[in-house]
Amino acid sequence: MTTPVSLPQATIADVGERALIERIRQRLPPAPSSLVVGIGDDAAVTAVERGTLAVLTTDALVEGVHFDRRFSSAFDVGYKSLAVNISDVAAMGAAPRLALLSLMLPASLPTTDLESLIDGVAELARATGVTVAGGNITRSPGPLVVDVTVMGAVKPRRVLTRAGARPGDQLFVSGSIGAAAAGLAWLQHHGRDSTPSPEDPLLQECVTRHRRPEPRARLGSLLGRMRAASACMDLSDGLADAVRQIALASGTGARIERARLPVHPGATAYFSDRGQDPVALSLAGGDDYELLFAVTRRARRRLETVARQARGLSLVHIGELTTDPALVLDHGGSVEPLPAGFVHF
Amino acid sequence: MTTPVSLPQATIADVGERALIERIRQRLPPAPSSLVVGIGDDAAVTAVERGTLAVLTTDALVEGVHFDRRFSSAFDVGYKSLAVNISDVAAMGAAPRLALLSLMLPASLPTTDLESLIDGVAELARATGVTVAGGNITRSPGPLVVDVTVMGAVKPRRVLTRAGARPGDQLFVSGSIGAAAAGLAWLQHHGRDSTPSPEDPLLQECVTRHRRPEPRARLGSLLGRMRAASACMDLSDGLADAVRQIALASGTGARIERARLPVHPGATAYFSDRGQDPVALSLAGGDDYELLFAVTRRARRRLETVARQARGLSLVHIGELTTDPALVLDHGGSVEPLPAGFVHF
Repeated sequence: MTTPVSLPQATIADVGERALIERIRQRLPPAPSSLVVGIGDDAAVTAVERGTLAVLTTDALVEGVHFDRRFSSAFDVGYKSLAVNISDVAAMGAAPRLALLSLMLPASLPTTDLESLIDGVAELARATGVTVAGGNITRSPGPLVVDVTVMGAVKPRRVLTRAGARPGDQLFVSGSIGAAAAGLAWLQHHGRDSTPSPEDPLLQECVTRHRRPEPRARLGSLLGRMRAASACMDLSDGLADAVRQIALASGTGARIERARLPVHPGATAYFSDRGQDPVALSLAGGDDYELLFAVTRRARRRLETVARQARGLSLVHIGELTTDPALVLDHGGSVEPLPAGFVHF
Repeated sequence: MTTPVSLPQATIADVGERALIERIRQRLPPAPSSLVVGIGDDAAVTAVERGTLAVLTTDALVEGVHFDRRFSSAFDVGYKSLAVNISDVAAMGAAPRLALLSLMLPASLPTTDLESLIDGVAELARATGVTVAGGNITRSPGPLVVDVTVMGAVKPRRVLTRAGARPGDQLFVSGSIGAAAAGLAWLQHHGRDSTPSPEDPLLQECVTRHRRPEPRARLGSLLGRMRAASACMDLSDGLADAVRQIALASGTGARIERARLPVHPGATAYFSDRGQDPVALSLAGGDDYELLFAVTRRARRRLETVARQARGLSLVHIGELTTDPALVLDHGGSVEPLPAGFVHF
């Protein structure tokens, strides 16, 4: 048995830049042959298939804004920084291929935290077939920042934007909503090293959803390939925000049926126990990383095919886009305005 | 005549996220038809030409590390954030095409500063034919961070990496070195709102080089297209570092002839006047964004063609790659070790 001793941890200020890059490279999965130049040169170079479009997105996780090291481990931060970008690429109907990792590291960051962060990136990269092809490391005089860029590929005329839907199209959401918001609320009370009791598996799912959201890479790419959706967006800022964005971009209104919303049972239990409204909090809460998409009448057959190939992920009909520009929540016939989503500023 | 009055400036905390994105979009040049989806969706989508490779790079400017708002205006920070990335793409022999802008903004940042920053990005984007296709905005609890990703295009077998050079290849550097280091040293004494006297145009050039470096986009793309270089790298961390990187990646040593180094005359004057060694400081100083490249004996003719098309940019022969793994500075026959470059950590 070993007794834990408190040793001074190595920090990134003790390790040179090239040694840091080498450590990062060693923790990442090997690159495929389509990557002509990878980590360590001025830029990454990759082959793009014929007849495909490149899809590019960037999204940063900033300490003190998007995460708190008291509630998220370094592994979680790395995992999530890639997940949020893959989610954006999936929401365009594309398959994620390549990632660049731009790290801004406080000098006091323990080297083991950097390694855990990379392990988190590597785990999701492996699971989704994404190659980390390069990036940048610099010092940060303030917060830890992980800014990721992901490139994906999609065939022309298979791209799913926020625009393109029409009144009468049905709105669907994948999986469930509210779990990440409930998980975060629980962590804010208990701290990052806590885990809910094994006797509460639903709450455990909520905490996991907040820490390591699973981007819907397969679903997005299926929706694009099968041309099953007329518009699509991910739920990074919550379902209410996503409905607003698709309606705005498509020039429609929307009616969401409150009773159809797939609120995660763990979120329902957690918020109800505290006298809070699970539906309102699940509509407004961000970080679910499900997909919201619109389906035309003609595409419903194709959606059934997608649903069969979605490996058990549920696709739930929650409402319609409307000619009337209002955004409403229908509660058994009585309607109220749809609440606002997460606000960044 | 108007009397300047001190009005409270609007800050980004007063403006919503979508309004900020709209303001940014309005200040940028219009997108070409190859951009299928631009700013405002989950990701940008672009057509990639047949028979080309995509080149991707990311580089961040962090307040307090890479710039000081006392010495650089917001316009300069925007301009430079794009310049350093275009420089990396040029160093691969590629033509820059698309940029993503990831902004981390302190809540106290005046809105006019954000607008100036975008104007700086837009000026260089226009000059280089780069399209800003999307990005991300988030709050920063600490420094202002501008993280840019650039995608470029290059034909297969035209890619210039750091590796690929051999002993006997000649080393060339474009333009001049040391100007950015001299300009920064001057600004650190005089403050960002100062400009050197019009009677000292060389010093003015140095300050401009620090504030708004001109990436060698045309040269990099010419070197790639003409297959004139066997290896290439930009001077972001100084010439000494670039020589070390190319030699290391190519498995060679290098001998640089001190007398051949094209030290900018403004840097020579500025450092000499202060009793400092202009050559040592120009070798070590970063931010010049010239290109260092190796040329085989067989490619010298092709280099002459490149030189004729480089629009007056000088290409200076400064030394050779060697079988001997040492990196040396030859001073009229007596050799000394090449000094180290800029250190990030």
